[in-house]
Amino acid sequence: MSRLVTLGLIQMSMTSDPAENLEKALGKVEEAAGKGAQIVVLPELFQSRYFCQRPDDAFAFERAESIPGPTTEKLSALATRLKIVLVGGSIFENAAGKHFNTSVVLGPQGELIGTYRKAHIPEDILYHEQQYFAPGDTGIRVFATPFGRIAPLICFDQWYPEVARIAALQGAEIILYPTAIGTVDAAVEENITGDWEQMWRNAMLGHAACNNVYVAAVNRCGTEDQLRFWGGSFVADPSSAILARAGDQDEVLLVQCDLDKIRPLQDAWRFFKNRKPDTYGELTMEN
Amino acid sequence: MSRLVTLGLIQMSMTSDPAENLEKALGKVEEAAGKGAQIVVLPELFQSRYFCQRPDDAFAFERAESIPGPTTEKLSALATRLKIVLVGGSIFENAAGKHFNTSVVLGPQGELIGTYRKAHIPEDILYHEQQYFAPGDTGIRVFATPFGRIAPLICFDQWYPEVARIAALQGAEIILYPTAIGTVDAAVEENITGDWEQMWRNAMLGHAACNNVYVAAVNRCGTEDQLRFWGGSFVADPSSAILARAGDQDEVLLVQCDLDKIRPLQDAWRFFKNRKPDTYGELTMEN
Repeated sequence: MSRLVTLGLIQMSMTSDPAENLEKALGKVEEAAGKGAQIVVLPELFQSRYFCQRPDDAFAFERAESIPGPTTEKLSALATRLKIVLVGGSIFENAAGKHFNTSVVLGPQGELIGTYRKAHIPEDILYHEQQYFAPGDTGIRVFATPFGRIAPLICFDQWYPEVARIAALQGAEIILYPTAIGTVDAAVEENITGDWEQMWRNAMLGHAACNNVYVAAVNRCGTEDQLRFWGGSFVADPSSAILARAGDQDEVLLVQCDLDKIRPLQDAWRFFKNRKPDTYGELTMEN
Repeated sequence: MSRLVTLGLIQMSMTSDPAENLEKALGKVEEAAGKGAQIVVLPELFQSRYFCQRPDDAFAFERAESIPGPTTEKLSALATRLKIVLVGGSIFENAAGKHFNTSVVLGPQGELIGTYRKAHIPEDILYHEQQYFAPGDTGIRVFATPFGRIAPLICFDQWYPEVARIAALQGAEIILYPTAIGTVDAAVEENITGDWEQMWRNAMLGHAACNNVYVAAVNRCGTEDQLRFWGGSFVADPSSAILARAGDQDEVLLVQCDLDKIRPLQDAWRFFKNRKPDTYGELTMEN
């Protein structure tokens, strides 16, 4: 048996012009769908440069919008026309004055299947997200779409096997990570050296391996001020094998996944069945 | 600053003669210490063939022993003489009639620093561990040794990011995984295909990446009945880079680790600081 679905990952660079970025994103979604993609995923905050590099971008706050809102309207219209599931990377959401980093899932009838507000918000040199986003209040969510059960998580969530596990326990078949991550100037890194792209990839390959689900990461690329976004978007299968990986330039990555490979693997390895939740109490204690 | 420690991983095959296996293990520990190893780690159940391949090995039960007991006495004497920390892979423990798969940590004065009873027990084609071992009741433990803070976990625990995280939250600098894992005959695997060694490695690289700690896996090698143990013992650094990896034969793997690389990385990436425990409730719910 085979339940095939084709993922389309939109790896792209952004300019300082939001309208241009949206236009570019929509064009690439159309390109992916034209090549057979059924679930198309945009990067995190795909409409703008990564404004969180500075702690105080007032213009970014001005552009924050409601969901549903002008952007989801455009995404919805496109999803309807292309008959795809479109994961709107993430949008800077203004929810009645409270701000979130929010992923949206649109269905092939244009319906808003659901939203996910990023749970883990970094605050770091060049990643000042806590100046912009409240921690998500949606909890971890898995959405049944016509092309499979998907869990949208966002960027920094990548480092938290806790939420990947929760998504898998809820029945996610594909965990999606729209992302904006890059290398900072050596000068800024001080003494901390390492292959961060490898570390980032390994974190998510671990999620695929421990949960026997597909994992897809969709990063931006290009250089913005002090950050060089490394691209490297990829899809791993439920055995954590990398099926395809992008370079560091704009790329539409098409990857066919067989969702019927998931359940036999989960049944054979029995990672869920043999969990010991009474041993995990420390995970839910306050930091 | 550098706080250097040399790990010695004893990858070895076992015969059907327990005395021979113990003798071989002790010899290889001595070899590792002679080459500078300060923390030496033996594989899971290093004194015997992997008896759990069958569900009913009465002879294995006869050999199960108390801790402290005859084996820890020998390990203790050796640790004292070599002035090392010796992690006694695991021992089939008989604790007043209750049986566990137990790792022991002996210090350079021969002291029993602590024990850890394997929490996650597989029950699977050729891995009938639930016929032998009760789930561990020690909880996850981190032991302060003269050469660093180590957390012994065991084999199937590898697939549980939950317990790797708990070890790291408790301050583990090195997570150790004595292991017995191999490939089963293609005939037995039915339709489940994949690169299991890669999946196994990726799971643990994920733990290194998400926790910024050293991870060391120590597997057995050789073929026993229907199982081909793949060896492949390795050490990953706190950025999840593989520092050294064994082949599929007997090997004493010496790896120098700088424990002072851990904290700066943890402080820079802030994965612990930005955890959201109130989002993780589902992890502690019964399966």
